[in-house]
Amino acid sequence: MVYITRKERFNAAHKLYRAEWSEQKNLEIFGKCSNPNWHGHNYELFVTVKGEPAADTGFVIDLKFLSQLIKEKVIDKLDHKNINMDVDFMKDKMASTEVLAVAIWEQIAGPIQSQGCALHSVKLFETENNFVEYFG
Amino acid sequence: MVYITRKERFNAAHKLYRAEWSEQKNLEIFGKCSNPNWHGHNYELFVTVKGEPAADTGFVIDLKFLSQLIKEKVIDKLDHKNINMDVDFMKDKMASTEVLAVAIWEQIAGPIQSQGCALHSVKLFETENNFVEYFG
Amino acid sequence: MVYITRKERFNAAHKLYRAEWSEQKNLEIFGKCSNPNWHGHNYELFVTVKGEPAADTGFVIDLKFLSQLIKEKVIDKLDHKNINMDVDFMKDKMASTEVLAVAIWEQIAGPIQSQGCALHSVKLFETENNFVEYFG
Amino acid sequence: MVYITRKERFNAAHKLYRAEWSEQKNLEIFGKCSNPNWHGHNYELFVTVKGEPAADTGFVIDLKFLSQLIKEKVIDKLDHKNINMDVDFMKDKMASTEVLAVAIWEQIAGPIQSQGCALHSVKLFETENNFVEYFG
Amino acid sequence: MVYITRKERFNAAHKLYRAEWSEQKNLEIFGKCSNPNWHGHNYELFVTVKGEPAADTGFVIDLKFLSQLIKEKVIDKLDHKNINMDVDFMKDKMASTEVLAVAIWEQIAGPIQSQGCALHSVKLFETENNFVEYFG
Amino acid sequence: MVYITRKERFNAAHKLYRAEWSEQKNLEIFGKCSNPNWHGHNYELFVTVKGEPAADTGFVIDLKFLSQLIKEKVIDKLDHKNINMDVDFMKDKMASTEVLAVAIWEQIAGPIQSQGCALHSVKLFETENNFVEYFG
Repeated sequence: MVYITRKERFNAAHKLYRAEWSEQKNLEIFGKCSNPNWHGHNYELFVTVKGEPAADTGFVIDLKFLSQLIKEKVIDKLDHKNINMDVDFMKDKMASTEVLAVAIWEQIAGPIQSQGCALHSVKLFETENNFVEYFG
Repeated sequence: MVYITRKERFNAAHKLYRAEWSEQKNLEIFGKCSNPNWHGHNYELFVTVKGEPAADTGFVIDLKFLSQLIKEKVIDKLDHKNINMDVDFMKDKMASTEVLAVAIWEQIAGPIQSQGCALHSVKLFETENNFVEYFG
Repeated sequence: MVYITRKERFNAAHKLYRAEWSEQKNLEIFGKCSNPNWHGHNYELFVTVKGEPAADTGFVIDLKFLSQLIKEKVIDKLDHKNINMDVDFMKDKMASTEVLAVAIWEQIAGPIQSQGCALHSVKLFETENNFVEYFG
Repeated sequence: MVYITRKERFNAAHKLYRAEWSEQKNLEIFGKCSNPNWHGHNYELFVTVKGEPAADTGFVIDLKFLSQLIKEKVIDKLDHKNINMDVDFMKDKMASTEVLAVAIWEQIAGPIQSQGCALHSVKLFETENNFVEYFG
Repeated sequence: MVYITRKERFNAAHKLYRAEWSEQKNLEIFGKCSNPNWHGHNYELFVTVKGEPAADTGFVIDLKFLSQLIKEKVIDKLDHKNINMDVDFMKDKMASTEVLAVAIWEQIAGPIQSQGCALHSVKLFETENNFVEYFG
Repeated sequence: MVYITRKERFNAAHKLYRAEWSEQKNLEIFGKCSNPNWHGHNYELFVTVKGEPAADTGFVIDLKFLSQLIKEKVIDKLDHKNINMDVDFMKDKMASTEVLAVAIWEQIAGPIQSQGCALHSVKLFETENNFVEYFG
């Protein structure tokens, strides 16, 4: 079993808040991340796939396929977007890095499995100091 | 003459658009950066000061002073903010990296000069692939 | 289960040596790391916590709490210090990266558990070329 | 149990192709990686060893030994070489990152075990966007 | 005057050698870089343009134009290529980083000037430890 | 004229203090950098040389020569050392990054000039957030 990882990037705006909470309570719980006018990040996404290298190509998965899949299912929907407002698969969800990583997993796990390998992890950096990993 | 640089960071939302242009024209000129719902970045800021090291401390400038100055005049106003909406010194300006770098220079050049040294450059990364430098 | 990581930094001096060994034997075993007059590093620390994201906040753990905890229990004790001489929780221990990573785990595992989640790993970089991981 | 990692680097040329396939089929399957005249990379290699820190040194493994072992068995054979043509342990194998990572494992797992610890993983970066991990 | 920089990347093979020298002399002068079977690098290219930000866009140069120009004139000719064999603008030149940086300048200086701004520098990393800058 | 840069690294201990000042005054001026028991850093050093590429090699300077020169004159004297106590060329000087950068310049400018090129700059990182440049 070999694990191969592809790194992609997207730049997006978001805020952390709950509509049913007051602005004051949102500030208490989410701090400056609750700024009503949004802030944003250069997100970095690492998608790891596991499987056996194919005898003829030496590939676990075709990285062009993987990169294109991530682009269509994830990056095109998030890049230069507002995570709270613009992204179908984040509708009615908290725009936290934890929740976003799980949502990204759900976007790509199926199509990867159809290639005869398996999604192992989604790792998502919000900043150089904060990142999240999800293993399904 | 020795040059010393301090790196700081801020995370902010912005968009590139002109209110007097149609959404279509904004899209043509600014591409996905014109998304009306905003996007954002982890900005990295490098402030370079030049001067003679002091005989007793070996310092061109006290880095605690410089870091505190940048924090008060720049980071506190930009971090977790919307550059177009929330930042007094960007009012009625384009939120491009070029314009922002010049505006940051204007915020800090005076107080640095009062320390017996001089601001040499402001370098501002929007992403790992795009950055701007301004030398006054 | 989601894993979230916080990166912190500290700059410290240390040396590798055993007081009961001769300077010659220390040099043989520890090489230039045994310099009696010390050397130092910019350490980078990654603390990973695992748990379920909370339904209301989307958080595994409040990163402000985690960062503050690491600051009080680890960074304030190590930053700009001598690991062999100044750090209570390293008293009478080898100042190797391995031993330090285990000692950092012991400083923070309890308070993290009290938040309804669990410390998963401590990863400690001594240089860009050498790092250690401990999983309890 | 503590895990310690050493990072090393090598610069090498390679291409992805199967001699029994036409140039056209190689291009279809391997894309621009099949360029008959080669291309190359700055590879980054992370070797992780697991074990108990020794009571007297605080070491899982002597990093000078580990670095020297990797140099002799891996780096000296790959650095400034052509992976397809010059490397004994890659003879008749695909020069994919997956296959290379497995081959590097086989070069060093035995000598590490003879030190009373165990090789845990080989992590190999081909570019900043693509890397492979192998755990035996 | 504001300076804006775009980073691009390419992966290529090369060797340092002079055909009129013996293999022995090439080895003496160029060391392991003279390996007849080639080696390669992940090159990183920084192109810096200087000019006045436009009043309406806040741009020194349209980064999409600049990135596309670099792609057509430089990256498409170098990426996944052999610098000595495959690149028209390196024909009969030494494939050193110095010579390559100057040749890249000559590929793009004219088209940038036609945009009402000027090429300021080409910075080319061969490895994280070696890079070259050319200012015309 | 082409500029070429070589990056080297060293790990060292230091403190900022003046022996004729009280411990209290040292603390006021130098903050935690005045810890009497030392602290340390992973320093990164960039040495930039300018000149004309030679017609036969394409080199401004032989990087093996430059790297070896830096090793002998700078790295061997600083690496795994105490900058205040162990380094001949820092005797009776403040161990600030500014002063150290100037001292490194003085160690290597002459030998570089003897190669038919010129030292352009010494750039020294103390941490990822603080660095100094000296141009002679």
